[in-house]
Amino acid sequence: MSGDAEKNQRGLVQVYTGNGKGKTTAALGLALRAAGHGKKTCVIQFMKGEIYYGELGAAKMLAPYLEIVQMGRPDFVNKNNPDPKDVHLARQALDLAKEVLAGKKYDILVLDEINVALDFGLIETADVMALIDSKPAKTELVLTGRYAKKEIIERADLVTEMTEVKHPYNAGVEARVGIER
Amino acid sequence: MSGDAEKNQRGLVQVYTGNGKGKTTAALGLALRAAGHGKKTCVIQFMKGEIYYGELGAAKMLAPYLEIVQMGRPDFVNKNNPDPKDVHLARQALDLAKEVLAGKKYDILVLDEINVALDFGLIETADVMALIDSKPAKTELVLTGRYAKKEIIERADLVTEMTEVKHPYNAGVEARVGIER
Repeated sequence: MSGDAEKNQRGLVQVYTGNGKGKTTAALGLALRAAGHGKKTCVIQFMKGEIYYGELGAAKMLAPYLEIVQMGRPDFVNKNNPDPKDVHLARQALDLAKEVLAGKKYDILVLDEINVALDFGLIETADVMALIDSKPAKTELVLTGRYAKKEIIERADLVTEMTEVKHPYNAGVEARVGIER
Repeated sequence: MSGDAEKNQRGLVQVYTGNGKGKTTAALGLALRAAGHGKKTCVIQFMKGEIYYGELGAAKMLAPYLEIVQMGRPDFVNKNNPDPKDVHLARQALDLAKEVLAGKKYDILVLDEINVALDFGLIETADVMALIDSKPAKTELVLTGRYAKKEIIERADLVTEMTEVKHPYNAGVEARVGIER
């Protein structure tokens, strides 16, 4: 039984993908629950700038158990012609992720919206696969964002797809402060 | 535009359902983000006893912005023959939900696993529909749990289905402390 318990504490590779709500939110919830157990989470947000200040405020409340680093600009990234600044920031985010894993100071590392950064071509799938391979055994690694690559889904231990069944904002109304951001 | 902004701050009825992970977790993440904006969340957990202490510890860290009330026993509920104690606790949870909505002290009310309590027949769909009708305009109401009733999905503004694409615990290994609970 102790062998089972130990196995259970092995860190997994989780993916939250799909077109529905709740991917980043579930990652934040994971961090909150982990904080309740005294575990530390680092969230690196790809393609997100300072507009998500609710998440930053929340991180302060959970310090030192939650750190959120936003590696993006407030502007939307142009998928067909991404700005070199966006490519640079996404690569920096990936480098930071490597450092965080190597440093082993966090129990959980969330790479928020990394799947979208991959889909937009800001970073390469091979580099993310190498990052996953570098994960210390006990660290939980969570990759969020729609359009998750097939290779990453195959490599992950646990994959959840959030599907939008019904949404009042299909017309494009912005996210509400305090709820979605 | 201010009319739009105001409309955006109207509280919605959200449902997180499906067989995948992340339903309760997304609700906790919603609470964390809201806390970052100074908004208060009350989570009433149906059919959950004191084993979910990670969530309770986390709530303490976010006090007074998050309160979690567990209205269940640590034992599993027998779907085919529920104990009268479980029925009683689920009805108490529903009464508490009514009070919380009427009191208007919380910006968000999460009824965690209420869909399962309905599916198990511990409470009645008509009572939950009446509860939804009693929601103050500005309160966000979130109902989680697999097997969401058709009537509730129809009544909700926003429904997300979490689908399990890949899961290492299909064999029935228990949830890991600090991650799933």
